[in-house]
Amino acid sequence: MSLKILKSPPSVIGYAAVVGRREHEGPLSDDFDLHDMTEKFGTDTWEKAESEMQRLAMNLAMAKAKINGGDLDAIFAGDLMNQCVGSSYGAECFGRPFFGLYGACSTFAEGSILSSLLIGNGTFSKCGVIASSHFCTAERQFRYPLEYGGQRAPTAQRTATAAGAFVLAEKGEGPFVREVLPGTIVDMGITDINNMGAAMAPAAYDTLKKYFEETGKAPDDFDLILTGDLGKEGHAIVSDFMKSAGYNMNGVYNDCGLMLYNAQIQDMHAGGSGCGCSASVIAGHIMKRFEKGYIHDILYVATGALMSPASIQQGRSIPGIAHLVRICDSRSKE
Amino acid sequence: MSLKILKSPPSVIGYAAVVGRREHEGPLSDDFDLHDMTEKFGTDTWEKAESEMQRLAMNLAMAKAKINGGDLDAIFAGDLMNQCVGSSYGAECFGRPFFGLYGACSTFAEGSILSSLLIGNGTFSKCGVIASSHFCTAERQFRYPLEYGGQRAPTAQRTATAAGAFVLAEKGEGPFVREVLPGTIVDMGITDINNMGAAMAPAAYDTLKKYFEETGKAPDDFDLILTGDLGKEGHAIVSDFMKSAGYNMNGVYNDCGLMLYNAQIQDMHAGGSGCGCSASVIAGHIMKRFEKGYIHDILYVATGALMSPASIQQGRSIPGIAHLVRICDSRSKE
Repeated sequence: MSLKILKSPPSVIGYAAVVGRREHEGPLSDDFDLHDMTEKFGTDTWEKAESEMQRLAMNLAMAKAKINGGDLDAIFAGDLMNQCVGSSYGAECFGRPFFGLYGACSTFAEGSILSSLLIGNGTFSKCGVIASSHFCTAERQFRYPLEYGGQRAPTAQRTATAAGAFVLAEKGEGPFVREVLPGTIVDMGITDINNMGAAMAPAAYDTLKKYFEETGKAPDDFDLILTGDLGKEGHAIVSDFMKSAGYNMNGVYNDCGLMLYNAQIQDMHAGGSGCGCSASVIAGHIMKRFEKGYIHDILYVATGALMSPASIQQGRSIPGIAHLVRICDSRSKE
Repeated sequence: MSLKILKSPPSVIGYAAVVGRREHEGPLSDDFDLHDMTEKFGTDTWEKAESEMQRLAMNLAMAKAKINGGDLDAIFAGDLMNQCVGSSYGAECFGRPFFGLYGACSTFAEGSILSSLLIGNGTFSKCGVIASSHFCTAERQFRYPLEYGGQRAPTAQRTATAAGAFVLAEKGEGPFVREVLPGTIVDMGITDINNMGAAMAPAAYDTLKKYFEETGKAPDDFDLILTGDLGKEGHAIVSDFMKSAGYNMNGVYNDCGLMLYNAQIQDMHAGGSGCGCSASVIAGHIMKRFEKGYIHDILYVATGALMSPASIQQGRSIPGIAHLVRICDSRSKE
């Protein structure tokens, strides 16, 4: 049994999302707390801008939670930059116990799982979770110099310029993290760096299938099942795989990478990706929908592609992972 | 209070260390389980070799614990490579829930803390912890191409070619993880990438001082206080700082980076470093000393330098962190 049911489900008492220009111009614009059309956030490098986004998101989430940095027992943070410097420089100002994570685009769920388990078992009472990505830090690190203006393949996703933050606490009015299912690494041999949706989809399928098998539930028991960030390719693969396994995901399944941009107008190819993509969609859009009572019970399945440029150059395939977090507006619902 | 006292202290039921040539030629040689004089471990790239060291260390630790991979509730792993690929490719074969960490040289303690907190509170019953580094993957990633044969500054440390693994479990005969104190990021403005000991020392001091203040204990209450990996520079700074604060560390304080190599013969400048340095010293040498009854109660304070080549090029200083783990051969000792 990989599923963990939280006996004392932690509450999301603060949440915030900070985004860049394309994300602000996208369909979820109204649900983000802050944006900067220059994407520099008052700093002089893209890398510093990404750290600043983390700091801003965490500060806004704490403000909403009406707590100070000193109230946090621990901060869990991660990003895509080499040596995860977005997080170390982003979170150092808070002066709290710090756990650096690397889970690629699954980082926000990884941090939410660890926080929830440690709050749910009484170790901590309040934790911060932060994840970020920045198109300009990722593009030049993983692909080409920005000035080169490299073209993306139709199956490629765009790294979101975004950061999301949660404050999770033992007491609160919800929404609550009710169940978590940490993922295992699944590697089906995909080596195409321009199709990471395909590389991560088997991991999402693996985690979702385990969840439904362990709980006996069905996809339509939920208001929404949200992967992040598989984009168009990965979303189609997961839908197909789940259908073959007897689970009908129609009408209930979406992907953070598909939601962040407007496919018709913004031409983002297969959609968004990056640690900040699902972090901002969840900590911005989704939390606001819970607040308004539009949704009550969702599965958030964040996927990560755990390769590096060096591992791909050495001919290795792309290992994928998918961490599941069930968020629910009731503590007691089955 | 940052200190966490484990009510049900988890036991280290399996441990192993896998090292390269220089580490095998060093003074702790007899305490390591496996070495490869070619440092390739049967693979064709240094990066694959590092992953293989993780796999071997975890396998050996599980063999000693007499468990299978399937018995682990989760694996916590990290390394220094960009996007932590040493861990994703190293741990994927185990097919267990996976949490990727980034804590630089503090990773082994970070993983041990998270595992211990989750086992100590009944969430998990058995966890694996792995950390690794490889001189050849780190050198070409952080410094110069290997063929260049770059000279190191006298204050620089050598990245250890080593991996260490723990199996922690709720039941066992010890040694036990009795207390943990997760560190906060401390940045005193050091920008010299060739003196990371100095950059990390203030974090080690911060964590140690907090520990002694919170517990009312003194350094000589322990058989050994072990930082990792500050090397010669950092060790001297921590000794000085602690002395100024009224704590006498004489005779009880050592550093994993100083222990791994023979300073007279091997000429490793300021000592060893890298995630694998303290991981192998703890999971090799120190555990064997517990086994033989030479030591009974120690503080392991692993330090990490949370910068990247890019952040240094952009003129940022080096943030340090130090995570404390108290390991004790008795469950009940005060």
